[in-house]
Amino acid sequence: MNTRGHVALVGAGPGDPALLTRAALARLRRADLVLYDALVPPAIVALARRAQRFSVGKRCGRPSFRQETIHALMIRAARRGRRVVRLKAGDPFVFGRGGEEAVALRTAGVPFEVVPGVTSAFAAPALAGIPVTHRGLSAGVLVVSGHAESSYRPLLEMLPPQSVTVVVMMGLHEAGTIASLLVGTGWRAATPAAVVFSASTSASATWTGTLATLSSCREGAPADAPGTIVIGEVASLASVIGSASEGPELQFGPVYKEGQESHVSHG
Amino acid sequence: MNTRGHVALVGAGPGDPALLTRAALARLRRADLVLYDALVPPAIVALARRAQRFSVGKRCGRPSFRQETIHALMIRAARRGRRVVRLKAGDPFVFGRGGEEAVALRTAGVPFEVVPGVTSAFAAPALAGIPVTHRGLSAGVLVVSGHAESSYRPLLEMLPPQSVTVVVMMGLHEAGTIASLLVGTGWRAATPAAVVFSASTSASATWTGTLATLSSCREGAPADAPGTIVIGEVASLASVIGSASEGPELQFGPVYKEGQESHVSHG
Repeated sequence: MNTRGHVALVGAGPGDPALLTRAALARLRRADLVLYDALVPPAIVALARRAQRFSVGKRCGRPSFRQETIHALMIRAARRGRRVVRLKAGDPFVFGRGGEEAVALRTAGVPFEVVPGVTSAFAAPALAGIPVTHRGLSAGVLVVSGHAESSYRPLLEMLPPQSVTVVVMMGLHEAGTIASLLVGTGWRAATPAAVVFSASTSASATWTGTLATLSSCREGAPADAPGTIVIGEVASLASVIGSASEGPELQFGPVYKEGQESHVSHG
Repeated sequence: MNTRGHVALVGAGPGDPALLTRAALARLRRADLVLYDALVPPAIVALARRAQRFSVGKRCGRPSFRQETIHALMIRAARRGRRVVRLKAGDPFVFGRGGEEAVALRTAGVPFEVVPGVTSAFAAPALAGIPVTHRGLSAGVLVVSGHAESSYRPLLEMLPPQSVTVVVMMGLHEAGTIASLLVGTGWRAATPAAVVFSASTSASATWTGTLATLSSCREGAPADAPGTIVIGEVASLASVIGSASEGPELQFGPVYKEGQESHVSHG
């Protein structure tokens, strides 16, 4: 067994290669094998120049590879002395089963490390001009996954109305259900809401409205665009903070017009 | 007015310069002026080689400069054509008043951008081997600031016991109060808890215990070390996932050592 073999569970950030951490870039450049999720853009995967690169195809919580298969692939490659990067969109430990993979690696005795990434839960709102916390508007933020109603319903049903900012990841298909659920438990129908599609990419676009209109957020959006839902008073700040870039120096920032060029430079 | 002047609100990540994003590094390298918070390590500030660099001294939510003064400094410098970086620990829009600064800049008509960073809210737990969400243990995570009881008490009092992972930032001085509050509303006293001190730095250390013992988390820790509190079943994973780094390839990662119910380990 080659002791150099190991696995890095790496967060790729929200999409733009400029929002990759320096540590993530270093791991990719020296990787022998990269196993990446479907939401990681090709431009980031391509940074692993010398690695074999395989999509393990997870999307919206539905793995095309069984989770156990991913574990087995990582463990086998590391035991053969390979430097493996398990590359996940956003942060590896915010949904996406990074914890399960870490437990599997630890149980197998395979050396590994965790490289945190910029989470889409906070970056997607930020890039649309929405701070998830803001003095006087929100003193806390709850992040849930929308991919399964059985996962988010118990949490959202118990949440006191208007109490915190709610961020729903992977929940576009459930947007209407989530809005109805919250209004049913006492949230104001006029509570501001926003949906940030394909944050930090050239396809970035933001929808803004209220809980009353959230069910229509996907009208006009690309059918398969990933999106992050933000619910709470802070969503109203998109119209204050977010707007088109001003001046040639600003290659990214709070911009959210559909079809606009990527707002992150590669400098 | 020089149109090249602008402000970048930049997240520095949890502390390790390797966890800076490529975009943040690029902004620092071309900055003329950097206004940084006290928690940003000198090694990161120093990356802004050609800039004037001033600490504006915010720590634990207590600014040594008035917030309005920071706004005025940024606006004046940008209007004079300077490239200003407002550098904040973690992510600029997760607590820390980044939203207020963005509103001030927008109101003043000063061009600005937001560069999301790796938030300590999720990275500190991750680097101690704690995923904030984990299938079967936690389907959501609530992030609050502990710097003022008036801020977190209303939220935590309303939170159903054992419902989600709770992350408290800047809350070390309130650890005992927070634990009592949660137990008082029905959380089990045996609920796992962890405190990650100085995450991602050479002084990193993790305390693990329960709500019953959380009030003693600072015993043995450096008096002024910043810390992130994690409460919930996922904190128990520190003893499974976290352990000393294994192998020379791994430059950072889980620093927790398995052991007693309540202790601090140094990485």
